[in-house]
Amino acid sequence: MDIFEKLLKHMGPIGEHSDRAHGYFAFPKLEGEIGPRMTFRGNEKIVWSLNNYLGLANHPEVRATDAKAAAEYGLAAPMGARMMSGNTNFHEKLEKELSDFMGKEDTTLLNYGYQGIMSAIDAICSRRDVIVYDAECHASIIDGLRLHQGHRYVFKHNDIEDCEKQLKRAEELIKANGGTGGILVITEGVFGMAGDQGKLKEIAALKEKYEFRFLVDDAHGFGTMGKTGAGTGEEQGVQDKIDLLFNTFAKSGASIGAFMSGDKAIINYLRYNMRSQIFAKSVPLPLVIGHLKRVELMRKNPELKNKLWENVNKLQQGLRDRGFNIGRTNSPVTPIYLQGDIPEATAMCLDLRENYNIFCSIVVYPVIPKGQIIYRLIPTAAHNDEDIELTLKAFSETKEKLDKKVYEVAEIPMV
Amino acid sequence: MDIFEKLLKHMGPIGEHSDRAHGYFAFPKLEGEIGPRMTFRGNEKIVWSLNNYLGLANHPEVRATDAKAAAEYGLAAPMGARMMSGNTNFHEKLEKELSDFMGKEDTTLLNYGYQGIMSAIDAICSRRDVIVYDAECHASIIDGLRLHQGHRYVFKHNDIEDCEKQLKRAEELIKANGGTGGILVITEGVFGMAGDQGKLKEIAALKEKYEFRFLVDDAHGFGTMGKTGAGTGEEQGVQDKIDLLFNTFAKSGASIGAFMSGDKAIINYLRYNMRSQIFAKSVPLPLVIGHLKRVELMRKNPELKNKLWENVNKLQQGLRDRGFNIGRTNSPVTPIYLQGDIPEATAMCLDLRENYNIFCSIVVYPVIPKGQIIYRLIPTAAHNDEDIELTLKAFSETKEKLDKKVYEVAEIPMV
Repeated sequence: MDIFEKLLKHMGPIGEHSDRAHGYFAFPKLEGEIGPRMTFRGNEKIVWSLNNYLGLANHPEVRATDAKAAAEYGLAAPMGARMMSGNTNFHEKLEKELSDFMGKEDTTLLNYGYQGIMSAIDAICSRRDVIVYDAECHASIIDGLRLHQGHRYVFKHNDIEDCEKQLKRAEELIKANGGTGGILVITEGVFGMAGDQGKLKEIAALKEKYEFRFLVDDAHGFGTMGKTGAGTGEEQGVQDKIDLLFNTFAKSGASIGAFMSGDKAIINYLRYNMRSQIFAKSVPLPLVIGHLKRVELMRKNPELKNKLWENVNKLQQGLRDRGFNIGRTNSPVTPIYLQGDIPEATAMCLDLRENYNIFCSIVVYPVIPKGQIIYRLIPTAAHNDEDIELTLKAFSETKEKLDKKVYEVAEIPMV
Repeated sequence: MDIFEKLLKHMGPIGEHSDRAHGYFAFPKLEGEIGPRMTFRGNEKIVWSLNNYLGLANHPEVRATDAKAAAEYGLAAPMGARMMSGNTNFHEKLEKELSDFMGKEDTTLLNYGYQGIMSAIDAICSRRDVIVYDAECHASIIDGLRLHQGHRYVFKHNDIEDCEKQLKRAEELIKANGGTGGILVITEGVFGMAGDQGKLKEIAALKEKYEFRFLVDDAHGFGTMGKTGAGTGEEQGVQDKIDLLFNTFAKSGASIGAFMSGDKAIINYLRYNMRSQIFAKSVPLPLVIGHLKRVELMRKNPELKNKLWENVNKLQQGLRDRGFNIGRTNSPVTPIYLQGDIPEATAMCLDLRENYNIFCSIVVYPVIPKGQIIYRLIPTAAHNDEDIELTLKAFSETKEKLDKKVYEVAEIPMV
């Protein structure tokens, strides 16, 4: 049969609503400078959807550096994969800077986070190795696992007992196969949906009993967690127990690209063996120079992280005080858990956007179980008290309407 | 056992030589403006390693646009995945422009080519579908295939008889499985190593006999092939028979990022279902605006492509006239096939770089069989006659030394 015809019968969980949702709930356009107030369909909204945690996207020094670097080098340089013709002194300088920041011997830049972590998992694990991973790991990690030809054992999210159980299984399997395989454990520093930290400390402690290497994706923790902003490993006092520390510039870093830090030998191995890096173009110079500036600001200006956390605490405490369930977050990621069906969720989200001018992301079935609604708010250092107050007020009022079944409408009033 | 310890015993085909090769044969730094003359270790070299086919990397209008866009928007905007918060009018404008250029109904931008094509293959094919693909497809396609849970049948490179044989196998398998699967055929417009075009016309003709969809990766053909530069499909008169046309900006486009063009419905399906696009950040605005300028120049200035081909023909004819084997290339990619072992290849490459100031890429065992050496030259519109003449002379002289066994040295004289 025709492969396309089959596909087009089921446009996917979000695609099925694309006729009505496109441009509003899906692929919305936020216009103007990146920040807590942006323009959506002609009106100013308070925006809680951007992972611009430290407010670096529009920091004057960042903007000046981005502009200067692009003027000096253009966006084409360097050409080619890093290994072939795309290496520069700036790439190497950034790797040194990041290693120092992360407290690791070496770092290799990744041209994009998604393909970078996939290829890293692929380069590390052969078919005799077993991967033990948290059930809520990000899509990019899952796709990396899908490239793995050996066994993979999932443990229940942040369940250390189950993690240990899977480690035992892995050990037994490897032993049964002649002992030539090893174990890689993968989890995240901060889980991007619920905002809870991975149990890095507890997993690291399992090294006393089991032989494994530990890969942590700290995309949301980089710049936001730990005393110096070095991430969730620092926060939990186990940075040195993380063998491979993956971070991306797509969040706090307000850019694209990513990096992996660890011991010199293993990082050099990755540098020479990650397919997505060997066979694809290097990170452009203005981005690399922009990363250097961002990292410098992260390290030199702890007040950015302090301001972020001030806002995080105000927002999260305000929500808790108003009786909202924000779950188990212990990071800046702020979910709000509500009950309601899709039409109700849609109507409430519309009300928030159109009448309260609050723009935030919403997650419903089939991403989460039926009847649940999750709003996901990302406070940043750039938000102010008024943003927070207006948002708390808007959520209080719309929650009251939700509880009173005001949003129980037959038709989804899509704009 | 320790997974790292095992890895570090075998640093990989290129990694094993990293002690001596790093910074010279691997991860070399080409400095100065992107072009046919760049600085390597302090000296000017004639560079044949960059896929800057049309010379756009340093085109004054490109440089001005890159600088202006970065000054206006910074390199952070937009934040987030396209579907969530990373969409802009510029992204949509570029998609329209590219659709028009490619002669397709619709186009979706991809934040990076490698993960883009992987995710596209993944989004299109379910376990009941069969992928039939050319044996020399790029690493990114192979990694896409590795995500595929169904069968995949490889055909010998550009062997249409074998391609048909695999199509028959695929048809039979699908029939045996109840007929609920479909077939996707994948090949490339121009194969990046040997420079030969994929047999798009012949494969497209097989649609008369077999039901399949046709995906073509035209990374090297975009901007270089066909009357208007629309690629190898245009060159072979079968652009309309390509159901999914993949192109990257990393070569002629002198940037990063990629795109997929095709019928409206299937492109919209991809837009809503490619994991690497839904779960990773959008292409930054200055890159998108830069792409718009590059595409405008490609379309408005056919003299860029004409100049490229003038140089291609001079270089390739010059090599043929001097008795070099450049294989089956019918694209700008210019391989030179020689015989010699790795120490000889290394010595010759060093001689070319240090004494003739020619910088080009070299491929040896284990990427290709033992005893073979392939130099791979990429002529561009920016090269001039002197570059070509000096290069031809250098290859003539070093080939003579190679034939006379001058490079048979016991020690590799690594700089």
